[in-house]
This record gives sequence, structure tokens and C-alpha cells, in this order.
Amino acid sequence: MTALLNRQIVLARRPAGVPVPGDFRIVESTVPDIQDGEVLIRHAYLGLAPAARLRMSETRSYRDPLALGDVVYGQGCGVVVQSRKPGFEEGDAVMSISGGWQDYSVSKGAGLDRIDTAVAPPTVWLGALGTSGMTAWIGLLQIGRARPGDTVVVSAASGGVGSVVGQIAKLKGCRAVGIAGGEAKVRHVVDDLGFDACVDYRAPGFADALQRACPGGIDVYFENVGGAVRDAVWPLMNTQGRIVVCGLIAEYNDGQLAGPGWFQILAKRLELRGFIMSDHASLRPEFVAEMGAWYAAGKITVKEDISHGLEAVVPAFIGMLQGRNFGKTIVAL
Amino acid sequence: MTALLNRQIVLARRPAGVPVPGDFRIVESTVPDIQDGEVLIRHAYLGLAPAARLRMSETRSYRDPLALGDVVYGQGCGVVVQSRKPGFEEGDAVMSISGGWQDYSVSKGAGLDRIDTAVAPPTVWLGALGTSGMTAWIGLLQIGRARPGDTVVVSAASGGVGSVVGQIAKLKGCRAVGIAGGEAKVRHVVDDLGFDACVDYRAPGFADALQRACPGGIDVYFENVGGAVRDAVWPLMNTQGRIVVCGLIAEYNDGQLAGPGWFQILAKRLELRGFIMSDHASLRPEFVAEMGAWYAAGKITVKEDISHGLEAVVPAFIGMLQGRNFGKTIVAL
Repeated sequence: MTALLNRQIVLARRPAGVPVPGDFRIVESTVPDIQDGEVLIRHAYLGLAPAARLRMSETRSYRDPLALGDVVYGQGCGVVVQSRKPGFEEGDAVMSISGGWQDYSVSKGAGLDRIDTAVAPPTVWLGALGTSGMTAWIGLLQIGRARPGDTVVVSAASGGVGSVVGQIAKLKGCRAVGIAGGEAKVRHVVDDLGFDACVDYRAPGFADALQRACPGGIDVYFENVGGAVRDAVWPLMNTQGRIVVCGLIAEYNDGQLAGPGWFQILAKRLELRGFIMSDHASLRPEFVAEMGAWYAAGKITVKEDISHGLEAVVPAFIGMLQGRNFGKTIVAL
Repeated sequence: MTALLNRQIVLARRPAGVPVPGDFRIVESTVPDIQDGEVLIRHAYLGLAPAARLRMSETRSYRDPLALGDVVYGQGCGVVVQSRKPGFEEGDAVMSISGGWQDYSVSKGAGLDRIDTAVAPPTVWLGALGTSGMTAWIGLLQIGRARPGDTVVVSAASGGVGSVVGQIAKLKGCRAVGIAGGEAKVRHVVDDLGFDACVDYRAPGFADALQRACPGGIDVYFENVGGAVRDAVWPLMNTQGRIVVCGLIAEYNDGQLAGPGWFQILAKRLELRGFIMSDHASLRPEFVAEMGAWYAAGKITVKEDISHGLEAVVPAFIGMLQGRNFGKTIVAL
């Protein structure tokens, strides 16, 4: 095979805040010969996603940072030009989740899938049928557990993920409300994508407009951006609502991804859940059976901080709030 | 029946910050005659819980605020002295979740349970076998989904809820690490309650000590206090860890229960969950089937923001981070 020229975009410098062109450099090299078990792909399209910004910083997020000189991470789809791996043949249309910002990539098969261009054109396999779409689908249905009748709010509603979130929400019988920046996007989200409403976060009165668009409150918030947009969403959340932390674009350019652990929630896929015992009162018989047996068997040690008389209630309560109690605070009357 | 005297602790004034004795007042009244369907209980013990502080503020939390002059909300256990409700008889030992800070209470039966003092003495029915214990049990097992081998960290570890959380964690095969204030509590948590470790949040080097106590990171954090204690926990959370938001004692005395929505998480029982699509890659066939069918049926509208040529990648990426893209960002090579 004649030597093929590969052009690659590499990280030349770590961006400070929003990247600038000088943070990147195009280098040229010869495509290496592939080994047994490898596939060579010529990219026809690259799909760009904000999360690529994360790997440009020195701090580890959920993936290792790029080293300076590394090809920038990203998805590509195209055609197999050479295969030494069973299951892939020359001419196959494929998508590679880690093709990178380059003309050709070599894959051992991880994150490499054949795509059916009779179902949808290649670019759609980078979008609605690719990782953007699957992120929307998993996030809304598996993580957010959206149910018919729920009000679903999604930020970055005209973007690769957000546009699919709202459309799935509609297909599943939810009310879909988008948040987007600027009149053109807002119109597109409602008129073309079929959301029930969309609110412009850059317009004055954004928080009020969001509230008007969600008269029944918000059951699922699909978080793509973070920052100030989120602040308008919080007070509208309904009891037992779900917040799907998918992306924090507004915070990716911060050096430290500060804030109240939000980036930790994303990067570590944490789950935070508030609860109140009385919501689960029907489990009391099961609880009493299990705890009663443990207590009877001497497996639960109890320490009580007992005061005496009704007059002791207030001092005991104040002491408890100050951490001066030692054990369960009880007053004997 | 001779008229009985009832002493009640009522809210005289809304506390500013930590309550002071003058925020409360004891009033005396005659116990009213009960009606059909009601039970009169003489309280032997009251169980105090920090959440009572919430109802003293004017802002609604997850329950309505007390009005000035209302009896303070709280649990009581005692004996039925008169019953006009089937299922309860004079002499029955009972616990009332809403008995209030008073000598006698009248109940229609909601949150009123008979207790078996052969299983445990009445005070334990206010603690490990009462709402404190059930809160611990629900929170750790249902909400936190603690599994054998997990490291469970609980704040306010010597308190009514925390002491039970750690003991259940041990019974379920977890590593239990407490956080408590002062040497005596720390010793009690390890020596008497059997936690694997306990760290003093008031001691210098608290964050480092917590890290040493959790060499494998934290899988479940049972949050009882909020504030600065939480800040030491966050960086130690493991991937796919669970944070059970049960209480925020350190923040209850703030006028506004500020912070990044933490109080909202509790009051509204919200669930926040970060996710990354690749954790769910095994669902791809199901996704492609459903989304492919929607796309083929024309139910998914796609808008692509396509640039051309490798040189266009960096400008397109920068534009996307600034919100200048319109639709899924793709570069055709």
C-alpha cells in the first residue's frame, strides 16, 4: 500500500479559559502500517463535543488529560481502508468514538462500530444515532426516569444532546421545555424540534419566563451547561425531581471547575439523593422486624442522652443543635 | 374523668440563628375531652431531633412552619390514658411521631403506633427502633444502596441517626467510618459502637485524617450535617458513589439555608446523578434499535452545523464552547 499522508490536530499548549487557535497545531505524518487486530479508517466526518475541552486541562476529569503533542480526542466516522481484524472489511462504513481530530485513525476495535448508512447518513451516526443521541436517551430515560406527563427541562436545547433530549421527551409523552441562547435557536427548538416551549437564557427576565413555561414545576432537569442557567432551574424543581448531570459547558473553561462539587458529580457519576423517612413509612413493619431482631440479639448499641422534666426540653434541644448532646437526645417526663 | 393539666412548650418567637430559651414559652391548659376516633396519650418520653428547628423558621421547608403559639413538633412515647379509637386501649404503650413537646397529646391515629416494650424499652422506640433508626435504615440501604465491602462515612456519627447508620453498615459487611466532634465521641463511636474508624472534625488535620481513615475512598456518604464537614468528604468520593442527603444540621440555623441547592435536595427529596454514556455502552443495540426506528419514521429532526476541512475543526470547536454553533457540530473532511 502506498504511504498515506495523515494530518493531525495536536494539543500545542494547554488552553487558559476558552481555547484559542494557538493552543493547537496541525502536524503531518505518514499513516503507519497496521498490525494484526487493527483497522485503518479514513475519516469522512468528525463530531465535535464540548467534553473534549476537559482533556485539554492538566487536571484529570473522568479521563486522563491529553499530553502536549497528543492528537485531540474526538469521534470520527468514515470508511475502513484496510483491516487486519475479523469483523471489519475494506469499504465498511464505521464510527469510532476515539478517532481523534485527524484524517486517518488506527483502531483495535474498542469503541469502533459499523454503521448502516441505509438507516441514516453518516453524520447522523455522529449525532442523533451516535454518542450525542445515546447520551440523551440514557440520560433522560435511565438516569432521569422521565415518565409520561413529566415536565422535562433541558439546557443547550438546540445542541447535539439537548435537541435529542427534548424530542425523546415528546415521544415519551412528557412536556419538553428547552433553554437556549438567542431568538433563532429558541424558535428552532419550538418550531422545528417540536418542544412545547423554549426560553432564551440571554433575554432579560429569563427566570420568570422559565417559570411561566413550567406552570407545573420541573420533574426532570437535564443539565448540559451549569452556571447561571442552573440557578433559575433550582427553585422550580418539584418534589422527588431528578437532575441529570450530563454536562457543564459553562464551567469547562474554568481552571478549577469549581462550584459545589458539581463537576465531581459529573466526573465521578455520583448520585445525591435527599430523602425524608416519612415518604417510606410503608416499610416500617420490615424495619421493625429487622431492627428489633438485631436489638434483641444485642447487635445494636444504644446511647441515650436523657434529661428530665419538661423544663429540660428547650436546653436539651439547643444543646443538640450545638452538638453538645452525646447520643440520642431524649427527655423523660 | 377529672380534668388533667397539660403543660405545653410553644413557639413564642422565631429564633434568629441558634434558638435561645426566650424563643419558647411553657403554657398550661386543661386536656380537652377526646372525640370519637381519638386517643389521649400521656407522654413518658420525648425524642428530640434537629429537624424540629426547620419548622421554627418562617420559610417552608418540607413541612409547614409552626405558627407562633403552636406546640413545638416532636415525637413522644407513653401510654394511652383514654381511647375512643378501635385498635388502641387504655394502658397501651404507644409512640406518636407528632406528639409534640407537651405532657399529653391527642391523636387521630396518624403516625401513632403501639410499641412492644418486651422487645425494647420505650426510649429505644424513640431512637434505634423509632424514626432515628428507620431514617438510618432507609437512608443507608434504600437510598445509599450500601453493599458489602463499601466504605460508608457518616457525619454526626454519635447522634441518634448516625450511630445507627454505622452499626447497620457493619452488620451489612461495610467499612464504617464516623465523623464526630471531640475525643469522647470519637472514642465512643469506635469502642462502643464498633465503627472501624472515627475522625474528629474539630481537630487540626481533619481532612487528612479522614483520607487516612478511608484508604479505598468513600462509596456512601451519609450526610447529616452539611457545611465544612462535607467539603472534606467530596474529594474522597469514589466513582459511582452515593451521597445520602439526610440532614444539614450545620445549616439549619442559617436564615436562608443557602448553599448550592443543598437544602433543596433535602426538602424536595431531589435526586442528582452524574453519568457518562460509556458506562452504559452495553445498551447500544437497544438504543440503535429505538432511535433508528424513530429516525426512519421521521420522528427525529436533525440539525447539523457542518464545517469543511481539517482546518475548520479548531474554529468550530471554539465556537461551540462559546455557544455559536447551531445544532450538532460536525466537520466534513
